[in-house]
Amino acid sequence: MAVGLKAPTHLHPVAGIRLGTARAGIKYPDRRDLLVMELAEGARCAAVFTRNAFCAAPVVVAREHLAAGDPRYLVVNTGNANAGTGEAGLRDARAACDAVAAQCGCRGADVLPFSTGVIGEPLPMDRLTEGIPHAVRDLADDHWLEAAKAILTTDTLPKGATRQLDLDRGTLTLTGIAKGAGMIRPDMATMLAFVATDADIERPLLQEMLAEAVDASFNRITVDGDTSTNDACVLMATGRSGCRIEPRGEARERFASALRELCMELAQAIVRDGEGATKFVTVEVAGGRDANECLRTAYTIAHSPLVKTALFAGDPNWGRILAAVGRAGLQDLDIGRVRIFLGNVCIVSGGGRDPAYTEEAGQAAMAGEDILIRVELGRGPAREQIWTTDLSYDYVRINAEYRT
Amino acid sequence: MAVGLKAPTHLHPVAGIRLGTARAGIKYPDRRDLLVMELAEGARCAAVFTRNAFCAAPVVVAREHLAAGDPRYLVVNTGNANAGTGEAGLRDARAACDAVAAQCGCRGADVLPFSTGVIGEPLPMDRLTEGIPHAVRDLADDHWLEAAKAILTTDTLPKGATRQLDLDRGTLTLTGIAKGAGMIRPDMATMLAFVATDADIERPLLQEMLAEAVDASFNRITVDGDTSTNDACVLMATGRSGCRIEPRGEARERFASALRELCMELAQAIVRDGEGATKFVTVEVAGGRDANECLRTAYTIAHSPLVKTALFAGDPNWGRILAAVGRAGLQDLDIGRVRIFLGNVCIVSGGGRDPAYTEEAGQAAMAGEDILIRVELGRGPAREQIWTTDLSYDYVRINAEYRT
Repeated sequence: MAVGLKAPTHLHPVAGIRLGTARAGIKYPDRRDLLVMELAEGARCAAVFTRNAFCAAPVVVAREHLAAGDPRYLVVNTGNANAGTGEAGLRDARAACDAVAAQCGCRGADVLPFSTGVIGEPLPMDRLTEGIPHAVRDLADDHWLEAAKAILTTDTLPKGATRQLDLDRGTLTLTGIAKGAGMIRPDMATMLAFVATDADIERPLLQEMLAEAVDASFNRITVDGDTSTNDACVLMATGRSGCRIEPRGEARERFASALRELCMELAQAIVRDGEGATKFVTVEVAGGRDANECLRTAYTIAHSPLVKTALFAGDPNWGRILAAVGRAGLQDLDIGRVRIFLGNVCIVSGGGRDPAYTEEAGQAAMAGEDILIRVELGRGPAREQIWTTDLSYDYVRINAEYRT
Repeated sequence: MAVGLKAPTHLHPVAGIRLGTARAGIKYPDRRDLLVMELAEGARCAAVFTRNAFCAAPVVVAREHLAAGDPRYLVVNTGNANAGTGEAGLRDARAACDAVAAQCGCRGADVLPFSTGVIGEPLPMDRLTEGIPHAVRDLADDHWLEAAKAILTTDTLPKGATRQLDLDRGTLTLTGIAKGAGMIRPDMATMLAFVATDADIERPLLQEMLAEAVDASFNRITVDGDTSTNDACVLMATGRSGCRIEPRGEARERFASALRELCMELAQAIVRDGEGATKFVTVEVAGGRDANECLRTAYTIAHSPLVKTALFAGDPNWGRILAAVGRAGLQDLDIGRVRIFLGNVCIVSGGGRDPAYTEEAGQAAMAGEDILIRVELGRGPAREQIWTTDLSYDYVRINAEYRT
């Protein structure tokens, strides 16, 4: 029941990246559930990982291997998160890397492992190691769509984004895939994103631009405030376009901007596919003293079950939004200056319902699938936006009925 | 569908307090929806109010009047919260006080107003002022049960608690009533509690003990994290027992303890009556470095929609609780030392599922209506507990279908 989301039909190959998938039968028979990505020699790699203290074994191992140098391979399985699995889980994650290394003639430390799926069950290593040679034999540069499908868990649609960027020195390609059904299932430990480009970028700059892009995209989406144990986003730069991005200048800005937009597209796709979602909701908070208070207000609204159930009902319930703004903990908030809008309809001003507000106008602003909640704090220049979903019967059904 | 909650059958009168109710027809015809409480001359009064920046008009006026001196009367209406009503709301709240004052021969500033009900609609002043003389004529010291009913909105049961305390110098009475269906409706702006005693207590000490008691009770309950615009808790001390409580000593400790227990009973009654609640859940976090990190962990668990839907399903879903602990933002958390229990069953240790855990034991711990989630952080002496509910279909139904 994805909200206004379509499966990608074409993703540009990225020179220096090959992808191969296989049916390893990790959880379900007869679906592609294993992905190997190959990075050409000399490719740079940056990554950000979950901040959850209970991070999964593959996150620990991927961090270690990335610290040791740029990887040559990524191995991703779905169906099992290898999370909450203690020491045995760490051994399994390393063994998965070793299995890829043995096939491909590199060291285990040249491989980054990623897992998504059920928490707390041991990774079925026999099936995984049996699948790896098949995935390696399948490596090709035009397998992005298959890769996008192979990493899904409960997602209803694959998620991919692609764009090309013309710079003076040539044309760059950026292509990315992501999975995650709205971060609503730490059991199906949740969000993974892999983005590649053929630009030539040194690793410190790559990490810097990835952090910026993630902050504006994957860190701006929420379905229920739960952060998974397995979240990871990887940015790979092969350099094969011959087009170098330096730490300063227009090329850096244009590349960073394209990367941010691509990540936003992927992040929004995750929200649109949020389980139980019937609305795609943008919460924009402007007029704050700093970004932090804008975000705090936006998340208080986005996480309020009362606001979310009203969104599900299509109810322009200004009292619930007003109460959420009021409890966001902003120092010395002058409520007389706060204005709240649904789309372009002002619903709150002067500490109460806007005098010009009508129920009909409010209803109309809530009628579509895409809803905009806009708050003007009236006390500064900062402005932030985040994306979220409503809270439906299906959310409760999916998460109450689902058993690990 | 209250969880293990019964209506009170007897509440001890408190010497120096009289209560009168009336059918004012504020929202529904033919129900008692107006309460006047009379405090004997010389009674002291303390109060705590919502920290929501969008606080309701009666909260603003009650704060003002309380700052001017101890009140002689409280006037409480249900059906309309007089919140989000701007300047007109302030005028109405003051007019309600003046109407009581005119009947009772005091000043408007001697009256504290309280409102609960729908947000954003003007208070029907004609009906309110017409009802006040009836409530005043009804004043009697044994009308606590009627008062408990008169302040309800969507609560399914009235909430009251009472106890007597034998001190060297005599017997003290404490009686309190509260309303609130789990703080889940800022539209039905929400929690009110009125507690009275015949002890003789100076106002600074009264305020201090109220703050302590509220912190251990009403500030430890959560249904969905939403804080109402109208929350208030009032503590009145008439002094009529002749038994004085001094700022230090055993009498103070025993009184404070009785007050805290009474407030906890009222607070837990609110959670047990939370709309849609099918479980009453205690979340206890021990072994923290300080109270703050215990509370942060407890609230992260209690507010997680994933944990709450698992509780609704009776699913011992340790992965969701573990993930919530992991994202509570504790500095340098050593996950190897964290243990998580359902009742007495250890579900998580050593960074994953406890080796001795069985699904059957977990199921058994989730079978009752009262559930205990216990987390041992293993890094300090602090310990805190809070109370919450599950997240059910009915929660969504009630809050999606309800229209202001």
